[in-house]
Parts: sequence; C-alpha cells; structure tokens
Amino acid sequence: MSIRFALLGAGRIGRVHAQTLASNSQAQLIAVADFSATTAQQLIADFGGQVRSIEAIAAADDIDAVLICTPTNTHADLIEKFARAGKAIFCEKPIDLSSERVKACLKVVESTNTQLMVGFNRRFDPHFAALKQVIDSGQIGEVEMINIISRDPGVPPIDYVKVSGGIFKDMTIHDFDMARYLLSEEISTVMASASVLIDPAMEAAGDFDSANIILTTASGKQCAISNSRRAAYGYDQRIEVHGSLGMVSADNLREANIEVATANGYTKPPLHDFFMTRYTAAYAAEIEAFITALSTESKLEPSGTDGLQALAIAEAAMASVTQGQAIQL
Amino acid sequence: MSIRFALLGAGRIGRVHAQTLASNSQAQLIAVADFSATTAQQLIADFGGQVRSIEAIAAADDIDAVLICTPTNTHADLIEKFARAGKAIFCEKPIDLSSERVKACLKVVESTNTQLMVGFNRRFDPHFAALKQVIDSGQIGEVEMINIISRDPGVPPIDYVKVSGGIFKDMTIHDFDMARYLLSEEISTVMASASVLIDPAMEAAGDFDSANIILTTASGKQCAISNSRRAAYGYDQRIEVHGSLGMVSADNLREANIEVATANGYTKPPLHDFFMTRYTAAYAAEIEAFITALSTESKLEPSGTDGLQALAIAEAAMASVTQGQAIQL
Amino acid sequence: MSIRFALLGAGRIGRVHAQTLASNSQAQLIAVADFSATTAQQLIADFGGQVRSIEAIAAADDIDAVLICTPTNTHADLIEKFARAGKAIFCEKPIDLSSERVKACLKVVESTNTQLMVGFNRRFDPHFAALKQVIDSGQIGEVEMINIISRDPGVPPIDYVKVSGGIFKDMTIHDFDMARYLLSEEISTVMASASVLIDPAMEAAGDFDSANIILTTASGKQCAISNSRRAAYGYDQRIEVHGSLGMVSADNLREANIEVATANGYTKPPLHDFFMTRYTAAYAAEIEAFITALSTESKLEPSGTDGLQALAIAEAAMASVTQGQAIQL
Amino acid sequence: MSIRFALLGAGRIGRVHAQTLASNSQAQLIAVADFSATTAQQLIADFGGQVRSIEAIAAADDIDAVLICTPTNTHADLIEKFARAGKAIFCEKPIDLSSERVKACLKVVESTNTQLMVGFNRRFDPHFAALKQVIDSGQIGEVEMINIISRDPGVPPIDYVKVSGGIFKDMTIHDFDMARYLLSEEISTVMASASVLIDPAMEAAGDFDSANIILTTASGKQCAISNSRRAAYGYDQRIEVHGSLGMVSADNLREANIEVATANGYTKPPLHDFFMTRYTAAYAAEIEAFITALSTESKLEPSGTDGLQALAIAEAAMASVTQGQAIQL
Repeated sequence: MSIRFALLGAGRIGRVHAQTLASNSQAQLIAVADFSATTAQQLIADFGGQVRSIEAIAAADDIDAVLICTPTNTHADLIEKFARAGKAIFCEKPIDLSSERVKACLKVVESTNTQLMVGFNRRFDPHFAALKQVIDSGQIGEVEMINIISRDPGVPPIDYVKVSGGIFKDMTIHDFDMARYLLSEEISTVMASASVLIDPAMEAAGDFDSANIILTTASGKQCAISNSRRAAYGYDQRIEVHGSLGMVSADNLREANIEVATANGYTKPPLHDFFMTRYTAAYAAEIEAFITALSTESKLEPSGTDGLQALAIAEAAMASVTQGQAIQL
Repeated sequence: MSIRFALLGAGRIGRVHAQTLASNSQAQLIAVADFSATTAQQLIADFGGQVRSIEAIAAADDIDAVLICTPTNTHADLIEKFARAGKAIFCEKPIDLSSERVKACLKVVESTNTQLMVGFNRRFDPHFAALKQVIDSGQIGEVEMINIISRDPGVPPIDYVKVSGGIFKDMTIHDFDMARYLLSEEISTVMASASVLIDPAMEAAGDFDSANIILTTASGKQCAISNSRRAAYGYDQRIEVHGSLGMVSADNLREANIEVATANGYTKPPLHDFFMTRYTAAYAAEIEAFITALSTESKLEPSGTDGLQALAIAEAAMASVTQGQAIQL
Repeated sequence: MSIRFALLGAGRIGRVHAQTLASNSQAQLIAVADFSATTAQQLIADFGGQVRSIEAIAAADDIDAVLICTPTNTHADLIEKFARAGKAIFCEKPIDLSSERVKACLKVVESTNTQLMVGFNRRFDPHFAALKQVIDSGQIGEVEMINIISRDPGVPPIDYVKVSGGIFKDMTIHDFDMARYLLSEEISTVMASASVLIDPAMEAAGDFDSANIILTTASGKQCAISNSRRAAYGYDQRIEVHGSLGMVSADNLREANIEVATANGYTKPPLHDFFMTRYTAAYAAEIEAFITALSTESKLEPSGTDGLQALAIAEAAMASVTQGQAIQL
Repeated sequence: MSIRFALLGAGRIGRVHAQTLASNSQAQLIAVADFSATTAQQLIADFGGQVRSIEAIAAADDIDAVLICTPTNTHADLIEKFARAGKAIFCEKPIDLSSERVKACLKVVESTNTQLMVGFNRRFDPHFAALKQVIDSGQIGEVEMINIISRDPGVPPIDYVKVSGGIFKDMTIHDFDMARYLLSEEISTVMASASVLIDPAMEAAGDFDSANIILTTASGKQCAISNSRRAAYGYDQRIEVHGSLGMVSADNLREANIEVATANGYTKPPLHDFFMTRYTAAYAAEIEAFITALSTESKLEPSGTDGLQALAIAEAAMASVTQGQAIQL
C-alpha cells in the first residue's frame, strides 16, 4: 500500500522531490500547493496530482504525508499546522532561523506525536554514506578528528544573503549536521573565525563569506570546518575522518571521469558547480529513506532535534566570532 | 508528438530500455513481446503497454519504432521483418554472428530505406563521450595511438560462451567499435594473440579468455586492445587516446568515491562489477539518442554498417590468431 | 672559494647536513664538535674534518660558518657565542622554547650583525616550494584560506615530550612557519583547541596529542591547521591554499608509486613514516640555500625573526587553549 | 676492501655512474678513459682517478672492474678485451645491434668465465622494483597479461636515429627486457605493427616512431607494449601486470607533487621529460647492485644472455613488421 503525498512548494527542490515520488512505487503524489498557481500547474502537468490549497491538504483524508519545500520563513508554521493535522512531515532545512522558534515548533511536533524528518540531504549522499559505513565498520578505529572542506561555487545573490540567516545558518549548517552525524557525540564547544574576503557586499549585508570553525565534544574529539562562498573550480565538498586506526575520506565529484595531458600538464575537469547536480543522488535517497521509514514505521532521521542542534551550533559559531571566545553549548 | 514504441524481448536489457522510455516524455511504450508471456506481463505491470505478438506488432499502425532486445540469433530476422514493416529499429549488438548474414540483412534495411541503430552503448557513456569531445576539440592534436583495456569481472557461464561467437565477437566487438569511432578512420590491418589462461573450459568450448589485438589504419594510426575475461577488482574499462599534442584518458568508475587509509595503505573500493551498473547512464543515453534522432529526423548512429565493420574486425582477429599473421581488411 | 664549516652536534640531523656539505663543491667541513667524542669521530670518519671543542671552533680563523645541531636548550647560548665570534650561523629550530630568551638572543645577533638562518626545513621541500611558486605566479589569485593537515606517524617518546615545549612549540611550529610563509602576512589572531585522544601519558606530561588551530591575519585571511601525533598510515603532510582564482595543493609522498588492485580494492602503499625520509630533499635544499646565500652574500631566510614569530604564535595557541578565547598577537 | 673501477667513456652516463661510485664506500674510481682527453680530465677533476688509455686499463693490476659507457659500436670489442683481461664488466645496453655479434661476444665472456652485467637500468627503478616485489609476493596470483606504455618525450636527433638500430633495438628493447623480467618466462612469439606518425624524417631514415608489439610465451601469457617517440606531456613510463588475483601498476613520476585547481580544472604538472631525471634512482641502484654483487660474489643480473634475448625479440619485432606475421623465437 503506497503512501499518499502532498507537496508544498513546487519550485526547484519541489520538482526534484516530485520526480523521486514518481519513480517510487510505494509513493503517490496526490496534491500540490504553491503560492503560484502556475508553478503548481506546471508540476502536476509533469508529475500528476491535483492542485490544492494548504488548508485543503491539511483537511484531506487522502494525504498521509507532506513534503515542505516552501521558503524558510514558512517552515515552522507549516510543520505545526500539519503536525496538528496528523500528517507525517518531511521539511527542508532549516526549520527556522531562530532556535527559539524551532524549540516551540518541536514542542508541537512532540505533543502531537508527529513523524518529522528534516532535509539534511548530505547524510544520504552515497559517498558520504559509504564513508559513514567505514566508520561504523570499525576499520579506522575510534573517530578522533574530522576535517570538512565545504566551498560553494559562488556567492549567492545578495538579496538571498540578507534573508539567509548568515553563512553559519545557511551554509555551514550542513557541515554542522555532518559533524554531529559522523562524530556520534554532541558538540560541547564552538570556536569560529569569519571574514569577508570575496565580496564587500557580504559585509554590507552583515554577513561573512569565508570562515573556519572548530567543534569539540566533551570527550575531546574535534571537527574542523573550512568554508568559502566561492571556489573557482566548482562545488568543493570534502570530508575526512581520522581515527585511531586510520582515516577515511570522501573526495569531490565531477561529471566526466577523464584527464587530458598536454605540455601544460595533466588536467581533470572542474567539479560539479551546482548543489543540485552534485547532490542529485542524495536528494533522491533522502526522500526514498522517508518513504521507507514511513512504510516500515521506522524512526525518522535526521529528526527535528537534529535540526535544532545544528542551528544551536550555528548560533554559537556566530557568538564565537562576535565575542572572540570559545562558546560552550 | 511522441514516438510509439514496441519492445521485443522483456528480459534484463529490455527492462532497462523500458525504464528509459518511461522517463522520456517524447516516447511511449505501446507494446511488448516476449517468448515468455509471464516476462512480458511483468514488464507491462511496471512500465505499461500491451502484450502483443511479434506479428501483431509488425502489422500495427500504432507502432513507430521497435527495440530489439531478443537473443542474438533472432536479430537479423527481426530486423528484416520490421524493416519490411516500415518501423524504425534499434537493435542490440550484434546483428548476427556471421558477417555474411549481416550483409544480407543490411541489404533489406537499405532497400526498404529503414532507420536502423545498433546498440553499441559505450559510445554513449558520458565519460567516453567526454573523451570523444576532447578529441574533436583538437586539444590533443591528431589522433595517433589508442589503448583500450577492457576486462570483464568474470568468465561468463560456459553455456553462454558456446553460443557467444567467441571472445572477439562477444566481448572485443565493443572495443572494435570504440576504436573505429575514436580513430575516425577504417581499420585496414588486424593482428591478434589469444590464450586460455583463466578457465580450461574456455578451451574446451573453442574459445579464449585473454587476448591482445593491434588494429592499424591505412594512414598508420594504431589501436591496441587488451582483453581479459576476469578481473578480480571489477569491471575494468579504460580508454586512452594519444595524439600529436597530448593524451586524453577515461578512467574506471566505482560506486563510492572514498578512500580508506590504514597501516596497510590507502585503499579505494573495487570497481563496478557488472556491466549494467557500469553502463547505466550509457544505456539510457543511447535510447534517448535514438528517440531524439527519430524526433528530429537525424541520421542514426551507430548504423548497421558500424555493426558490420566491427564484426568484420572480429572475424579478422580470429583469422589472425589462427593463421599467425596480420589480416588485411 | 668554498665556505669553511664547523658542525656542532654530530647526531642524526648533523650527519644529514654533513652529507649535504660533502656533496657541495662550495662547502668544506673543517671541524666537528659533539658532547660525545665517539659520535664526532664517527662523523669525521665518514665525512672528513677534525674533531674540535666548541671553544676552539669559536676561536678558529679557518671557520666561516657553523651549523648548530645540538639539543634545543643549547641553541640560544651557542648562537650568542658564535655571533660574537663573527661566524655565520645555521641553527636548527627552535632557537629556544621561550620567546623571551629568543628575543634576547636575537638582540645579540642584531648587535653583532650576524648572519643567522633558522632551520624551518619545510620551506625547502620541493613540493611545498613548487606550491609557493604557484602562489607567487598569481595563478590562484589572492590567497584567502590555507588548510594544513600535519600528522606525525606516532607519538614521540614521553621523555622527549616532557622537554619538547609541547605540541605547539614542537610540532605545530613548522605549520605556523609555513602559514606565515604562504600567507605573506603576519598572524594577528590565534584560536586553538587541543585534546588528548591518543595517549594518556601526554596528559600526564601536561601536553596534548590532537589539535586544531585557526590563524587569522589583519586583512581577514585565515589558516586552519589540523594536527595529530599519530597517523596509522604514515607521516601525513598536506597543504592547500585557496585563492580568489583557484587552489593549489601539495599531496603526500610515498616511496613507491605503485597501486595493487585486488578483490579488496585498489591499494597504494602507506606514506613515508619518518620525517627524515619524507624531508630528505628539504634538508639538503636548506643547507644548499644557506651555502648559496653566504656565497652570494644574499639575505638569509628563514631568519631569527621568523623563528621568533612562529614561537609567539605557538605561545598564543597555548594561551587560547587555556583561556578559551581568541588571542591577539 | 673496496672494488677498484675504471670508467670507459666519460660522457653523460659515465658521469652519472662516477657519482654513484663516489658515494659508495665499497667502490673506488681508479682510472678513466675517453676518446676526448678533455672530457676525461673534466670527470676526474670532479670525481678523482687518473686518465689512462684503454690498453693501460686492460693491463693494469689495480683495476677490478670496468664500466663501459662508450658508444654502442665499441661495446662488443671492449667486452671481449676486458673479458680476456680478467676484469668484471658492466656494459651499457646494448652489447651490439647484431645478435650474431652479441653471440660471438658472449662466447668470449663464457670461455673466460667473466662476470658481465648489462645496463637494463629499469629493473632497478624503485617503483618497478616495488611492482616486481608485489608480483613475487603472490598478491596478484599468477601473472597473465602485462601492459607497458613507454613513450619518449620527443623524437631523438635524426643522426642518432640512423645509427640507433631502429625503434625496437633502441627504445623498445628496455620494454622487452622488462617483459621478460616480469613474466619470468621466455617469449615465444612476437607480433608488431609500426608506423611513422610523428616525423617523416624517421621514414627517410628507415625507422618508425610509433609501434605496438604483442609478446606471447609458450604458456600463453602475453605482454602488450605501446611505444611512441613523442609525448607532449613528458616521459611516459607505465607498467601494469594483471594476474589471476588482481593487478599491480606503476604510474608515472613528476618532479612536484602538486595540483592547481582553477576554472579550467585540476592540473598536475607534466611528467619528467628526460630519461636521466626520470631514472636517476635506477642508474644509481644498478651500479650499487653491480658493486654489491661483486663484493658478495653473487650472480650478476641482467646478464649477457638477458641482453641477447632482448635483442632477439627486437629483431623478431622488426621481422614481424616486415613480413606481416607472427614470428616464432
């Protein structure tokens, strides 16, 4: 028996998830809502389903689960509404830019006993998942130190930057989640340094474009994260985990696995330059994991708490930059 | 207006192509034929369409094109039948194991002015396609020498070996096609050496499991091909092209792009170990190319002649082994 | 006319430098001093020269330059003695574990107008030197972020640890020097986190075995350093420099450039596991640079000030760990 | 007690070997002979020894061994002369361009019971030696197929080409020796294809610049060799050995282990572009092996027979090109 879905938000990422639903025989796309009727119509033309209002979806008997792909500032309200409506919920990260708002939202989720999964897609990237499996296998012994290098291909539009919550909540938050996931231990201390090196408009917007962060756990494990908003050579996404018996690393991806050798040297193509092509498999895998977990009544991960914890680390990183000191969580 | 397809043969590769049709808005799967009604039913359960007989499909008005995915010994007959029925044809390689039979078949194709594409899927592999683009861009200058290393993960079942036509017609034929495709010049001379090093059953079956082949063109360009029926580390598929200004190479693929470093060294996972996972993208791309070419009324490639030429090289390679001399084509 | 050398300290690193002198036609090894007469005799048996006392060397007319390869706690005294004796001086790092003592020593160097070079050998590693050349060429644009991963093969003997000055002064000091060298800008702020994850004896000795450090310059450039005292796979020494137009990285070295592929995957050998084999070329190049600079009367680098600055950063890193805050330099 | 050497030929490779002798405490350079007295004088100015005539060296009591580094056409005569004079002999490859002449020469070697080593330096390259160790360790099981890609950086001067004996005797002969060494079985059949693709002057000189060769042993093991006289990206020297349990490969070497990533992609520097820098370690190791074997009275390898066998394969390769058939050895 397949799970009946409503999709809230028919934009770029909404379409990606609609495609995953379409190719999964355990899922059915029943309804689509979007602020723009045209956008919703375009989606159902390609993937089926009906256009409905948010209210109609919340009230519907034929909807088991919703995928929230609307703008960030609507997430918490929608989660609360659909929690109260008794639907299972997948919500794109972040739940909200304020950890206070997230806490309030999660109380509703808890009190309604709602199944909620937050869209930290990188956990589902097949390469990072393989890295996690190596850790879990014990091949590298006890995890001690993690290094994450995460660089965007380019600075986002400044209008987006202004509402993004800043580099730590918008960009590094994915790395914070991966750090927690791979360390299997909560972060206790955060140190961060941030600069504007790329685009002065970032400074005008009160944000940073370059940052390094050190996370430490109670047992002394550490994770160093290095971020830049611009990498000339593409979307740079690397993780390495150093343990007592060795190290495991996941390297970058490019579209064509070729190399050209000339008098100038040996050249491989630049990396993927867009998160949606880099993480295509991850986006599909996270929705498939959501479907599978609902079908088998398993625990949903990453949870609302995972979303909250990553946000708390982001807030601590910002405080560390401002105060010039290590912040205890 | 989408192209209406019939699928002949609902086995492993038939299902792969059915999936590609399903996800392409310009294609429609109308009918499926298979020797086993059950197999055909299973396919339409997943991908739609009706089960029909070969005869009914040939006679049908609502079929524009057929995909021939049946056993090799039926290919030539089916091509002739559907050529006469006025359908566009995609046929899995090889057209036949006898170049005489292929020539006769291609005469029917020509006289009926039929659109025929042969399934040399490797031309459509995105990595090999990128390598071809580098050649065409002139970055490596004039192509001079090509090296293809092509090793299967393991020896096929001996019952298959017996009807396969032998290593050159069954396995190396893909490399022969790539050599012609990348050299952009016909092969004029073939030298080959072949041995049984892996499995004595190959010898009993009159076949080889290990071979090296040198192809030379009239202008003196050369391609060296190295084949083995077994590679402990997976499906080894490499091409490098050496030219007057440099070299371009396409390396192997693995599922997870990770590396584990321990006291024993730095280890990457084995390669894909199955041609259908290694060439997933290529299989989809070749059918998409077929659909696009039909939609835009473009020339189909690889053509029947491409199939014939590769087969002729395979026959020459076998003659070279037997006679211990270079064979002129 | 060749430069006449005395070697102070005939131990492991002393022998390495003696070999470099022996193979350089512009240098001549005249005298050797060591606390152990036997050790000094062994060295002159292989490389020539006379055994002399420190005092005799300082008083000698036939000595132009000294190489100080004695234990750290003698460095500052010896520098002062030979500065006053008018000799050019190469001294292994560090000058002293106390920046106060170093400052006093450098005053003598300055007042005597002595030529002093400090043995930060990594600047002379051909791979790091090539990386520096790429930076200087402008290929990667403005330097913005540096990532250094520096891991020892194993924890040093605890007796050594106790007199080493701690991880930052003993191990990270090389990375601090490389950070300054590659950033071409002084460090203004230091944040560090340090733990004992490998060997509890480190904690008993008041030291750490695992650390992350973030260095920031006045203009906001950053360098992240990741240290571990143990890497199962060898001596891990990587640097990458990210700039406005791209990135340059120097990867690890292994003795044999081979790869073994089996059913378990593709394996390259572990790294060099000893700093003296990893940095063989660097040790030779630094002494050759010293000889060349003396021969051509060029400026010596790294200078005493470079030694002092790196030490000051190490002290700031320790203060950051203790105080839990960013330390301004 | 050290071995007393005479060096015959003080040119480029003679100097390389003189340096190896100088740094080996078991060897002593006593005498140097060269057609040019000036060249000989220059060498002894740097490395010591006396200038002597060939005749004086042959007659001398204070010479144990000679290194023959003179032009190829003098090798056989010199070997015979010094064999009769009772000296141990290291001779650069080839002994002669005619296998008949080599056979005659080896009869003298045998009848005088002379210790003779032939300079196939690649066996001593540390990377190829490590590859051989992996084979011998059994990690890849039974050796089945070998692939050697060997490309020079550029076409040699045409005056050299004319006296070189042709591509197979001059260039591929190294690959033939490696094939025999790694297969541990004699070659029984040779097939070759050769072309002029780079420089028409090669054709005028009766030579080729591009070739592929297939060697087969009696048991059916095969080695494919691919040669080009010009590679835009440097001196391309790769070997891979495929066995029943896996594969081992040795990859190319470059001077700096760095990579630059820009909008154009990830670029590593070109390869070494000169055999003397590529094989520096190999040249030293072969002379050290010669010294050690003499010191320990061990068997010398590669032997005169190794030289003869490689030459016979070269002659067979040429015959295969001319006759268009497989040549039996």
